[in-house]
Amino acid sequence: MSFDKLQEKILAVQNPTVAGLDPKPEYVPEHIRAAVYAQYGETLQGAAEAIYQFNRGLIDALCGIVPAVKPQSAYYERLGWRGMEVMERTIRYAREKGMYVIADIKRGDIGSTAAAYADGWLGETKVGGASYPVFDADCVTLNGYMGSDSVNPFLDVCRERDKSCFVLVKTSNPGSGELQNIPAGEGSTVYGVMARLLEQWGAGTEGACGYTRVGAVTGATHPKELQEIRAMMPHTFLLVPGYGAQGGTAEDVRHAFHAGGRGAIVTSSRAIICAWQKTGKNGADYQEAARNAAIAMRDDICRYITIE
Amino acid sequence: MSFDKLQEKILAVQNPTVAGLDPKPEYVPEHIRAAVYAQYGETLQGAAEAIYQFNRGLIDALCGIVPAVKPQSAYYERLGWRGMEVMERTIRYAREKGMYVIADIKRGDIGSTAAAYADGWLGETKVGGASYPVFDADCVTLNGYMGSDSVNPFLDVCRERDKSCFVLVKTSNPGSGELQNIPAGEGSTVYGVMARLLEQWGAGTEGACGYTRVGAVTGATHPKELQEIRAMMPHTFLLVPGYGAQGGTAEDVRHAFHAGGRGAIVTSSRAIICAWQKTGKNGADYQEAARNAAIAMRDDICRYITIE
Repeated sequence: MSFDKLQEKILAVQNPTVAGLDPKPEYVPEHIRAAVYAQYGETLQGAAEAIYQFNRGLIDALCGIVPAVKPQSAYYERLGWRGMEVMERTIRYAREKGMYVIADIKRGDIGSTAAAYADGWLGETKVGGASYPVFDADCVTLNGYMGSDSVNPFLDVCRERDKSCFVLVKTSNPGSGELQNIPAGEGSTVYGVMARLLEQWGAGTEGACGYTRVGAVTGATHPKELQEIRAMMPHTFLLVPGYGAQGGTAEDVRHAFHAGGRGAIVTSSRAIICAWQKTGKNGADYQEAARNAAIAMRDDICRYITIE
Repeated sequence: MSFDKLQEKILAVQNPTVAGLDPKPEYVPEHIRAAVYAQYGETLQGAAEAIYQFNRGLIDALCGIVPAVKPQSAYYERLGWRGMEVMERTIRYAREKGMYVIADIKRGDIGSTAAAYADGWLGETKVGGASYPVFDADCVTLNGYMGSDSVNPFLDVCRERDKSCFVLVKTSNPGSGELQNIPAGEGSTVYGVMARLLEQWGAGTEGACGYTRVGAVTGATHPKELQEIRAMMPHTFLLVPGYGAQGGTAEDVRHAFHAGGRGAIVTSSRAIICAWQKTGKNGADYQEAARNAAIAMRDDICRYITIE
């Protein structure tokens, strides 16, 4: 099962983290940009191509150390269709390199529309008699505000093609409490109600590792809520943003894990992909800098957990 | 202001509805598909191009009768980057024809990521010294589950470039109540809490028409909630899905409007774009059929309201 594969990859590299690929053109080292812009100009096409070269270099540097990557759709949509083409290529390249790919899209819509998204991101799209995989990630992030019929079409494709998803429960951003922490239901909160819904939606899809195909997003920036959610959702794999720049520490994220460092994966984006900006080498060392940052994060988190 | 423009366009054509452009390849009449597939094959490229030809014909048929179109991103993403290229072209063509374009994307993410989405969909993307508009819609739909910092970056671009947005409050789908109708806050519900947040987020951005730049999505399928939300949100423009196939009637949607048929717009997608499937002419009349369906919907809704 999809999360079994993720758990195996985590075990293999002894690292429960995922590198976010959230690139802006200005995050791409000068030597890559200069070469690409010489060919395509300082255009959307040039920016997209520069980002692809950067992503490819990052994936080469990180595979074998980090089990998964998480491209964030916003940074590709920002460049229009050329960015989306690079998102497709990036997902394909990372999977070829053996990495598990979480497309961070946070989609959510009514049933027929959710089915269209599921075709594009996890499944296949029919054109006449033929079917084509499109973005073909291993996993997507979703927003469950609209209810089960906005998630079920994804779950159907997850079952058919052995994929999985993470649905937002308690997010890492400062404003997350405005809705999510409001008291709701019987002695719970909005995020608590969402957590219970997710356990229901996923029920019956457990893999060998014991987790359902419906994971949950829970921010490292709210350690109390993270502990509560871990306890409420014993069958749910957790995706944990907010470590590092946003303020979450290794001590905070350890609460996301079950024994043996199982059932959770911690994300980091800019601290890894922009690590070269802090070494004073003008980006010539961006691969080494990303690798070192990923290793430092792994070692920091593994001070509190043992992966086995 | 952006919603003033929408209100003016509604007044000009005396029609408070928006046509959803949610095309699958199989919704495109045979004669268009045959011609395009002869050139590009039954491929994702062929499907994308067929959909563009179809959209263009629909826009030609509907402009002057319907004030706005609402392309749903899922149906374009389903075809990968080629679909996104067609979404860009469709938005551009509809705006050239004087239509107001609502990109139905339902995005929502942490601040920096929301800013990247806002660049792509409403603003401009910087590459070196240059800035490029990308999808450049008039308006987007958003999901506010993550709180104000997921909406504010859009609002910043809305102010700069005179755009606006609609945020989900009470959606039209059958499962919407699973989270949205849970009792929350002081004597309210999750959707009620969201409604109050939206009025706060939009405050101070009112245009001449009295509405803020932060509109709300409220389904026609829940007429009681629609009335309640209209009363709770006096400064908020409403986008109302769920009319027609989903079960909402003209009598239900009239509660969305203020006096003079102001402050709301009702959506319809398949009933308009697939109207040709019911006339027995194999799609030769798809433009006429779409126009007739749009006129029938306008007349149905205008039995209960007067636009002035």
